[in-house]
Amino acid sequence: MTTQDVADDLVAMWKAGDFAGSGEKYWAEDAVSIEPVAPNGGDPVARGKAALRGKGEWWAGAHDVHGVEVEGPFVNGDRFVVRFKMDVTQKDSGQRFVMDETALYTIKDGKIAEEAYFYNGM
Amino acid sequence: MTTQDVADDLVAMWKAGDFAGSGEKYWAEDAVSIEPVAPNGGDPVARGKAALRGKGEWWAGAHDVHGVEVEGPFVNGDRFVVRFKMDVTQKDSGQRFVMDETALYTIKDGKIAEEAYFYNGM
Repeated sequence: MTTQDVADDLVAMWKAGDFAGSGEKYWAEDAVSIEPVAPNGGDPVARGKAALRGKGEWWAGAHDVHGVEVEGPFVNGDRFVVRFKMDVTQKDSGQRFVMDETALYTIKDGKIAEEAYFYNGM
Repeated sequence: MTTQDVADDLVAMWKAGDFAGSGEKYWAEDAVSIEPVAPNGGDPVARGKAALRGKGEWWAGAHDVHGVEVEGPFVNGDRFVVRFKMDVTQKDSGQRFVMDETALYTIKDGKIAEEAYFYNGM
């Protein structure tokens, strides 16, 4: 699969709201996920498929998702960029807001080797 | 200078339209610029400050710029993302359009080590 093939399939899954399934299908065993700051007070860098799964489960448990917009993918070599706008309510605070972030994925051997997120701190 | 400091200064220069000056100030001598496809029929990867300067001069000579919008910077570690919307006319064709692209910069020792561009092919 080319980077474009992987990107197109991932975007289709995300548009369908299947963020857990997309990770199971495409995360490399040693995939790395990099936030600008720790999303839950921990390390901003999560390493390995189990850690990324845990991060996703924490996030899904902490938010109600009302809608997802995905713009892209925009491919360059083994990387691609997607912009996510997610209309969510943070369960603890009850606060509803639109998360607006750019995600950068690096694909190696048809799998996500790295994901990095870019957004304004909240 | 932190990545944030460099990013903030670059964005200020870009908002003022100073794309040539920003490169002279911040490109590392061995900086690399990566397009998804070659912008002028050449190599999509330009290597070295002289090559990046030439690429910028080619681009500036081929387009009239009517306006620039810069969104960002969004910093993550030694990288940051900016979104450019440039209202331009391609001189050869006379065609006016809005270039909409996401740019990813990697900063090392206070200089741009790599710039990579993400957009839909034209």
